[in-house]
Amino acid sequence: MNLLNDEFYMSLALDMAERAQGQTEINPVVGCVVVKDGRVVGMGAHLKRGTGHAEVHALNMAGAEAKGATAYVTLEPCSHYGKTPPCSDRLIAEGVKRVVVAAVDPNPQVAGSGIERLRSHGIEVVTGVLAKRSERLNETFNKYITTGMPFVTLKTASTLDGRLASRTGDSKWISNAAARERVHAMRHRHQAIMVGIGTALADDPELTTRTEVPGLNPIRIVIDSKLRIGNEARLLDTTLAPTVVVTTTAADRARIQELQSRNVQVLVCGEGEHVDLQLAMRRLGELEISSILLEGGGKLNGAMLEAGLVDRMTLFFAPKLIGGTLSTFVFDGFERMNQAVTLDEVEVETLDDNVCISGRALYHHL
Amino acid sequence: MNLLNDEFYMSLALDMAERAQGQTEINPVVGCVVVKDGRVVGMGAHLKRGTGHAEVHALNMAGAEAKGATAYVTLEPCSHYGKTPPCSDRLIAEGVKRVVVAAVDPNPQVAGSGIERLRSHGIEVVTGVLAKRSERLNETFNKYITTGMPFVTLKTASTLDGRLASRTGDSKWISNAAARERVHAMRHRHQAIMVGIGTALADDPELTTRTEVPGLNPIRIVIDSKLRIGNEARLLDTTLAPTVVVTTTAADRARIQELQSRNVQVLVCGEGEHVDLQLAMRRLGELEISSILLEGGGKLNGAMLEAGLVDRMTLFFAPKLIGGTLSTFVFDGFERMNQAVTLDEVEVETLDDNVCISGRALYHHL
Repeated sequence: MNLLNDEFYMSLALDMAERAQGQTEINPVVGCVVVKDGRVVGMGAHLKRGTGHAEVHALNMAGAEAKGATAYVTLEPCSHYGKTPPCSDRLIAEGVKRVVVAAVDPNPQVAGSGIERLRSHGIEVVTGVLAKRSERLNETFNKYITTGMPFVTLKTASTLDGRLASRTGDSKWISNAAARERVHAMRHRHQAIMVGIGTALADDPELTTRTEVPGLNPIRIVIDSKLRIGNEARLLDTTLAPTVVVTTTAADRARIQELQSRNVQVLVCGEGEHVDLQLAMRRLGELEISSILLEGGGKLNGAMLEAGLVDRMTLFFAPKLIGGTLSTFVFDGFERMNQAVTLDEVEVETLDDNVCISGRALYHHL
Repeated sequence: MNLLNDEFYMSLALDMAERAQGQTEINPVVGCVVVKDGRVVGMGAHLKRGTGHAEVHALNMAGAEAKGATAYVTLEPCSHYGKTPPCSDRLIAEGVKRVVVAAVDPNPQVAGSGIERLRSHGIEVVTGVLAKRSERLNETFNKYITTGMPFVTLKTASTLDGRLASRTGDSKWISNAAARERVHAMRHRHQAIMVGIGTALADDPELTTRTEVPGLNPIRIVIDSKLRIGNEARLLDTTLAPTVVVTTTAADRARIQELQSRNVQVLVCGEGEHVDLQLAMRRLGELEISSILLEGGGKLNGAMLEAGLVDRMTLFFAPKLIGGTLSTFVFDGFERMNQAVTLDEVEVETLDDNVCISGRALYHHL
């Protein structure tokens, strides 16, 4: 049973922020609850980039009740003019008495200055209430705002012997319905989805979000060093969702133009046989893609891991053993066990008879 | 909180049986609790092959109190003369009024006749109380008594990408201390432990039980088709535990005799390049080995799986990714996903940041 305390209201603000994951593009998800004299008087969340921040929605709802109230905000109120005026100013103007903050904003343009601004106007500010949960909700934003690189979540669905398909390539289905539904929900929450050309050719996937209620389709990214993707590929149907093809200087100029004429964005990253994945991530960041769900085949998964570009892994295991060599991660491998990529903050979840193991990637070989 | 009912006493009988796992050789583990007028008056378990059954120990403790009492037995009382007289006769002779049984004995020499015998003497018999737990405790016995083949539990400790070692063979350590302790406890509970010659040569293991308090060492079985094992191998030190080497007709006769002179048992199973694993299991069964813990390398694991000889799998995963090709299961693999070996009654356990996934193997390719 919930106690009546700061966590009680902050957890609602976090719930609201969580529901908006996937719809704020490069912006963080934020929730706000305004409480006055023991009653909730306002609530809101940031819903779309370029529109009102969580505090603004919640204060609008509160109206005159905001005066003397406590505002619970999952992320430090901004203190700078972005696409909207600073929220700290609005809280001050409304006469809010106390502000409770979950996480400090890592955005170098904020980074504590919002809190300072409130305090300098005599508002009591408490920080760190359910901070971890808020930081986790915005782990993609946090990486992007500090590095300009997209946060990459690698997802696999494999057998217990680590295979993505049978030796003949049969992969329908490895994981159970509950795990597959989970993957579609993950697509909704990421701005983009990325595969290699091998997967694109083998499965001709749509990479759209197919969920019980409609979700958002991610931008599709295909790593295709030699531009082998065919015109009939579903991934080139940009009426479904935007598509970015990442290739190298080895790609045929005419073919690049052909793809561009079909409304496909082409990024040339790298000069050799292989796409320079580090450069690709930087360029995708410049395109304002802050989160990528990597649903690669073994080779792309292995290359992204070797390059240290995977931030989180969500690995679904079905209780099956199929043999063969179509592994989840294909790369030469590290010499010593202590160079292995490890997972931190490991979470284990069972979905009927499937198991989902996830965590943050830590690198020891770079 | 426990209710006072049949399950309350049966669960103690099962706890006692469980603690004796690994020390009864080909015999089942059985516990018995005798209750009279609301008080436990006797308890016992079968502790060693050739010595008293659970009922005998419990009835000895109960003495005259057994008359009119209820006996809780985890396995149907025997009705035949084995190494000891039938327990059903003893229960009848003591004047027990009611017998509660967890599981019926699948031994064709019993299989319900013990229960019938009790009923024909006016004893009330209730069956099926915590039956599943009892059947699980004796899954090795149940297979062995009905097929003559050992029950095989396959164990792996791998990375999340399904590797047993780094590309250079470094495997110390993959799993954490909690998982490794678990494996040693598993060795205690199995009559024998089996590896391939690859593992024997690479790691020179002892395959003994190293636990916090002393445990029993399993018989060591090495699958070694060409008798490549060296004289200095720890596995040939039979002062630690008995050793069985399984080979083929391709093996050198003189080398076989040399091993035999060192107190090593040699089984010749198969005529070609490879040990006939099916035949090997049958011969090991004839040696009264009813349970085997398979700690193979990838090739032996794959071959045992292909042959349908693995009954249970206990797979430990450490949150690491190492790359390379040293997989947990190395075999050609099945053509279609629906031919995959599946796990039934899947159990998932977390051991700090390691995950243990286990279950019964079901075959669809045979």
